Amino acid sequence: MTSLVSEKRIILKPIGIVRTEAVGDEVKDKTRISHIIIRNELAEALEGIEDFSHLFVLFWLHEISEEQRKTLKVHPRGRKDLPLLGVFATRTNLRPNPVGLTLVELVKAEGNVLTVRGLDAFDGTPVLDVKPFDAWDMAKDARVPGWWTKLEKEKAQPR
Amino acid sequence: MTSLVSEKRIILKPIGIVRTEAVGDEVKDKTRISHIIIRNELAEALEGIEDFSHLFVLFWLHEISEEQRKTLKVHPRGRKDLPLLGVFATRTNLRPNPVGLTLVELVKAEGNVLTVRGLDAFDGTPVLDVKPFDAWDMAKDARVPGWWTKLEKEKAQPR
Repeated sequence: MTSLVSEKRIILKPIGIVRTEAVGDEVKDKTRISHIIIRNELAEALEGIEDFSHLFVLFWLHEISEEQRKTLKVHPRGRKDLPLLGVFATRTNLRPNPVGLTLVELVKAEGNVLTVRGLDAFDGTPVLDVKPFDAWDMAKDARVPGWWTKLEKEKAQPR
Repeated sequence: MTSLVSEKRIILKPIGIVRTEAVGDEVKDKTRISHIIIRNELAEALEGIEDFSHLFVLFWLHEISEEQRKTLKVHPRGRKDLPLLGVFATRTNLRPNPVGLTLVELVKAEGNVLTVRGLDAFDGTPVLDVKPFDAWDMAKDARVPGWWTKLEKEKAQPR
């Protein structure tokens, strides 16, 4: 089917920035605390957010190059023992629009600062949006492929 | 806390477009089928996606004006009987970066076309990303405010 997609570019401006002391793989530790510093002029837009326990954070993977954005296929986590898959069938950072999406726990909201747990983004990452999480965002009966389950099981192993 | 957020603009290019026969509020019907037509040159990036039952779709709310993006507070769904809240404490379309995020059921993946159920986006909406859904994206014990629960209960009523 022909796509007829507009060639028009979409322009976003960060609403804030991630601050964390975690470096490298430490950001994947789901118990880690990070801060999201929201632009001062947008602080008012946080009012009421403290009544939610969980948020989705959309952030810009600013370390991905234009060249990397052209990647169409990857082995999940670079593992050659897993199938070669389209980037849209994985959560790789190498995607045409490298926007990260992570569900985090909101620990505290104070002024223009959100304190969150479980954000796997590096220090200095531009934040694009935060959205409250609710039950509409869950699928209890979700089906995932075998390679995914395999990786999940390995993650659950003690290191 | 000072934000020190980069003023650098972020440029995205749609990966595809939404096709649906639903108009107006019909798009909110979670049983509705839509199609996502992916750019032909990205079709390969869908390989393996059919093994997931659910996807997150990130899309660009292209009908929101520059002026509307400056909105900081809203009454949820425009209802004056509900508190005036920061846009980041709601799922309103009126946000600095109007990116929609919806969990959908993947019905079929064929060539460059994804057939999905439950996408609340209008015909012609630019799609920015699709990501497979898994259990990391759920919070079973999520807490939401009273106004949110009230709206959810109303939604569940027969019309």
